[in-house]
Amino acid sequence: MTLTIWTYDWVPPPPRGHVRDLRLRWACEEAGLPYRIAAVRFEDRTGPDHIARQPFAQVPVLQDGEVRLFESGACLLHLAEKSESLMPRDPQGRAETQEWLIAGLNSVEMVSVPWWFIGLSNPPENPLEGWLSARLSRLEAVVAQRDHLAAGRFTVADLLMADILRVPKLRAALIDYPALQAFTARQLDRPAFRKAHQDQLDHFASADAARDAARAKG
Amino acid sequence: MTLTIWTYDWVPPPPRGHVRDLRLRWACEEAGLPYRIAAVRFEDRTGPDHIARQPFAQVPVLQDGEVRLFESGACLLHLAEKSESLMPRDPQGRAETQEWLIAGLNSVEMVSVPWWFIGLSNPPENPLEGWLSARLSRLEAVVAQRDHLAAGRFTVADLLMADILRVPKLRAALIDYPALQAFTARQLDRPAFRKAHQDQLDHFASADAARDAARAKG
Repeated sequence: MTLTIWTYDWVPPPPRGHVRDLRLRWACEEAGLPYRIAAVRFEDRTGPDHIARQPFAQVPVLQDGEVRLFESGACLLHLAEKSESLMPRDPQGRAETQEWLIAGLNSVEMVSVPWWFIGLSNPPENPLEGWLSARLSRLEAVVAQRDHLAAGRFTVADLLMADILRVPKLRAALIDYPALQAFTARQLDRPAFRKAHQDQLDHFASADAARDAARAKG
Repeated sequence: MTLTIWTYDWVPPPPRGHVRDLRLRWACEEAGLPYRIAAVRFEDRTGPDHIARQPFAQVPVLQDGEVRLFESGACLLHLAEKSESLMPRDPQGRAETQEWLIAGLNSVEMVSVPWWFIGLSNPPENPLEGWLSARLSRLEAVVAQRDHLAAGRFTVADLLMADILRVPKLRAALIDYPALQAFTARQLDRPAFRKAHQDQLDHFASADAARDAARAKG
């Protein structure tokens, strides 16, 4: 059964390489799971068809045969059930993978994404700065002691945490956290990440080409 | 096998009734899973013993036989695997429960908790106000159309979303969202929530009594 990952057909340049279908592409590449890409028109993302698929008008959405689900974190859990390369099968290894995946979403990204969002408007002070530092310090202490977050091996929890930490502004903030820098660099050096990342860039670049052609014709 | 839910022995009054062991108590009450409470001293929460249990110095932590895990969202997923009353067993029902649980953590709470945190210092404007309204509007449209988030029945996703939305300041903000108000009120009227909530209040009240006695003695 081929998996289908839904993303946008096109996005403006800034988020390219960071649209969250990347997390699913990366996981599929790690696991050797075949997948195809389907696209919703960026301009149609708040229309009824896409809202029926994703009620917050976001991507990705994953289709696996008859099963469809949204939220990149939930899609990663779903993919992790399909391949031991993403999550070990023993109960404690499974629990650790899930706790660190959720820690990425709800203890790190819950602070880092609003911190990034507030920073976009360049306020004199970011009210989330101290909270972010506290979370990064705790995480630094963990990865200073071990190579992987969960189960003593690469899991989907490492994948997700690296994707959270690689946001450019956050990577700059990691200068005070050498173990987090090294952790993130190790994950981003994996061939599966590099392929997934390049494929996403190519996907949006080819949309530019198609739009240019349509404009020239019109 | 009795489950053990770790929380603090005591917290100051404001967070009482909202400490996240409540989510696990509530889920266990819904599922009829026996559990006991274990407590880390509030003053020892950043000490090495608790950091080994919970690297962000938070609660809850769940012990299930040999398996131990942290993050309330991960603990809820773990409990949901133990009881069909929390998550249906068919693939689509399971996927919907997981996507809505993650949506609570990463699409709603990722905005609402930082919004609440920033609001504590009473700034003239909250930079997350517009983003929060956008997310609540999308969620309002969902619960205006159906009684439950996932699978056409009560699941752990409803439990988590109601706990996210019942934060007092957020409940006040729900005045513009009648379907979300009604959704939250329905979940909070469940006997399992009322028992879990009262038990947490009693747990911290008895810690007050013990501290008062120790102080009188000392």
